[in-house]
Amino acid sequence: MTKSESRSNGLLMLFTGNGKGKTTSALGLAFRAIGHGFPVCMIQFIKGSWKYGELEAAKHFAPLMEVHVMGRGFTWKSADLTKDVAAAREAWDFARKIIREGKHRIVILDELTYPVSYDMIDEKEVIETISSRPENMHVIITGRGASEKLVDAADLVTEMLDVKHPYENGISAQKGVEF
Amino acid sequence: MTKSESRSNGLLMLFTGNGKGKTTSALGLAFRAIGHGFPVCMIQFIKGSWKYGELEAAKHFAPLMEVHVMGRGFTWKSADLTKDVAAAREAWDFARKIIREGKHRIVILDELTYPVSYDMIDEKEVIETISSRPENMHVIITGRGASEKLVDAADLVTEMLDVKHPYENGISAQKGVEF
Repeated sequence: MTKSESRSNGLLMLFTGNGKGKTTSALGLAFRAIGHGFPVCMIQFIKGSWKYGELEAAKHFAPLMEVHVMGRGFTWKSADLTKDVAAAREAWDFARKIIREGKHRIVILDELTYPVSYDMIDEKEVIETISSRPENMHVIITGRGASEKLVDAADLVTEMLDVKHPYENGISAQKGVEF
Repeated sequence: MTKSESRSNGLLMLFTGNGKGKTTSALGLAFRAIGHGFPVCMIQFIKGSWKYGELEAAKHFAPLMEVHVMGRGFTWKSADLTKDVAAAREAWDFARKIIREGKHRIVILDELTYPVSYDMIDEKEVIETISSRPENMHVIITGRGASEKLVDAADLVTEMLDVKHPYENGISAQKGVEF
């Protein structure tokens, strides 16, 4: 089974595109699930992509909301590449464990598209692991430039298009919004 | 002042487009704000657009999260039009009061684009009220087909594009996701 079509429960959702709202949508789904009393696990594949405030906000919803900051902030220096790859794989191994355990109703793989696109994590293994996840588990992948195979595997794909961005107007990030 | 460019705090954000993730993104921002301890008010302009589970989820975060189900589910029958318009205006009057009071850090005007597009609520008044909102208040408008003037007035606009939708695959809405 490479698609989730035959599953009675649990969707693979993909939020991609260059606009704001990808991780935010994932957090919105977390919000709903937590309101239902369902546990949520969020794994961050790019360290530093979350602002301090977001992590603080997430902690507020513990123990139902679990956040794991993994991976590394990419420096794009070749000297760091080996470390970047190792960190990405470690994050993926952890994500695979969480998915297989099946303790969470929602598993968010935040910014997973990047290490997949850069071949740091094996795309086929990602799709196989997610396709054979426990029933009732929703998996959400966020990040720009989702690969064609990830799009094919997903049940729901929304592309967030950046129509207008506050930085263009010289407005800096706001506490409590934290883009 | 018709734009928020000169404000030091508080953004007008617009989530539009035909894809999933508009209200969800707004909820994600609510999640972050509540995590910071900031109060959030969500006003629903189209009754019935929210699922039971979402309202239950939101109640879990009271008193910081306030949700007001207003407006009516549109029947598109001319006999109901007067009632639809009256309900939309009542919802807007309430929203205006909430915005002016300034007690909330985030005010979400869920599905406001529809009554504005159908001239049930005066667009100019909406933009003026939001533009003169108290400092530090973020306003989020969601809904398809945002008018050009709403886009012009907003600091941040993301268009959510429906790339793939689970209903196409015959999968019905899931509890805890509730599209």
